[in-house]
Amino acid sequence: MRPLAPGSRVLRLTLEYDGTELSGWQLQPGVRTVQGELERALESLLGAPVRPTAAGRTDSGVHAAGQVVSLRLAPSQLLPLKAFVQGLNGLLPPDVAVRRAEWAEDDFDARRRSRGKLYRYRILHGLPRSPLHRLTHWIVYRRLAVPPMRQAAACFVGSHDFAAFRAANCEARTTRRRIIRFTVSGEDRPGEIVIEVLGTAFLKQMVRNLVGTLVDVGSGRRKPEEMEALLRSRDRRKSGPTAPAHGLMLCEVFYEDQVE
Amino acid sequence: MRPLAPGSRVLRLTLEYDGTELSGWQLQPGVRTVQGELERALESLLGAPVRPTAAGRTDSGVHAAGQVVSLRLAPSQLLPLKAFVQGLNGLLPPDVAVRRAEWAEDDFDARRRSRGKLYRYRILHGLPRSPLHRLTHWIVYRRLAVPPMRQAAACFVGSHDFAAFRAANCEARTTRRRIIRFTVSGEDRPGEIVIEVLGTAFLKQMVRNLVGTLVDVGSGRRKPEEMEALLRSRDRRKSGPTAPAHGLMLCEVFYEDQVE
Repeated sequence: MRPLAPGSRVLRLTLEYDGTELSGWQLQPGVRTVQGELERALESLLGAPVRPTAAGRTDSGVHAAGQVVSLRLAPSQLLPLKAFVQGLNGLLPPDVAVRRAEWAEDDFDARRRSRGKLYRYRILHGLPRSPLHRLTHWIVYRRLAVPPMRQAAACFVGSHDFAAFRAANCEARTTRRRIIRFTVSGEDRPGEIVIEVLGTAFLKQMVRNLVGTLVDVGSGRRKPEEMEALLRSRDRRKSGPTAPAHGLMLCEVFYEDQVE
Repeated sequence: MRPLAPGSRVLRLTLEYDGTELSGWQLQPGVRTVQGELERALESLLGAPVRPTAAGRTDSGVHAAGQVVSLRLAPSQLLPLKAFVQGLNGLLPPDVAVRRAEWAEDDFDARRRSRGKLYRYRILHGLPRSPLHRLTHWIVYRRLAVPPMRQAAACFVGSHDFAAFRAANCEARTTRRRIIRFTVSGEDRPGEIVIEVLGTAFLKQMVRNLVGTLVDVGSGRRKPEEMEALLRSRDRRKSGPTAPAHGLMLCEVFYEDQVE
């Protein structure tokens, strides 16, 4: 990483977005993306283009409550923190907002410095379709059994080779990742299942592929005992379907004490 | 109410809808309404027009988790209950769905027989704007104090003349209504306030006008002690602003044992 120019500083932003009508984080021509919207707002605020780095490159349709982004700002761009929150929120569209702005250490990088990410996946099951949850939950019409899903989730905790759960076009060089916590909560609300995965890092679509496999377990199509063999196979064709993007949310990103 | 023709039956449907893009319950030419969408789906399913009656005529933008509707069906229209749920859900748009279908007593009428309705109003306060809650919560930028709001809400419990809280164009002949329960819950989620009102019946925009007044109390603009005088004034110009529709949800409608 190139060193910070004298007088420059690193800004850390926490973003919330409703992914429904966004084509994911990453800049792409001709479609609305979080990065595209943020860069446009930053350029309006600062008068010059700035390139943000995000902790997680969320897919199209995925939501975020706590995406973290880092920016290197030139001396002339060092506005008061409040101006970044209020200024950007006045410039961003209704489905993207800045929740917090903080000055970070000079070597802070939202992606490389991340020590963990917490994702939440929400499912409604065994019910007719639900207009109020259609943009935030995967609606599974069959009734799912939670205990075997919980048993299957436990098999993935720890350090494993997750090659069987990565997207076909995933470009990561290594496929070993560590899941710190993987919980399947029962029914706070009738018919709702909330899955939380905390991991140090994830392969492309790994969370959605794990959730798709857990739903196969919950519906009786697979057994929790098959998970070990599935990991060992390293074969994406053997694992479950990719769960729909709109059920997924990036909740929080964890760092060591890099923020002032 | 005209008597039921021989062989006819009354169907009770429970509906859920996301009010964001709907112009309320009531049929209106040129705009999407819940009644309009339901009538269109019923006509497709049954081959003839049917006129549903709703427990509450929700305003434009208001959501429902448990709106109740009654329909009188001719002998040739008595499909199995399952066909009403699945058939209508296949015909209704994504933002409206049937949660349940039941046969009701011959004299059941969703509006006249209702003994109580539970509304929920959700607020986020003291935070920057929130893309994930912008369609379901009133975002109030100031920080609100919950205890005085709770104290003010308690003043409205019981039977009162609510003329000061009805919409200018409300056509109800009497303005006395009874609130059974009126709760202001603190912070399950940081910054969230959930207000629940259970009443036997409501005047037009009464819940939203009560919530607007409670928010005035929470922000210090009014005192809980002023509520009694406000009720006595019977003057809409003296009460608070109408809270935005998108924070409101009709949760449940209560009946005596009229359903088989």
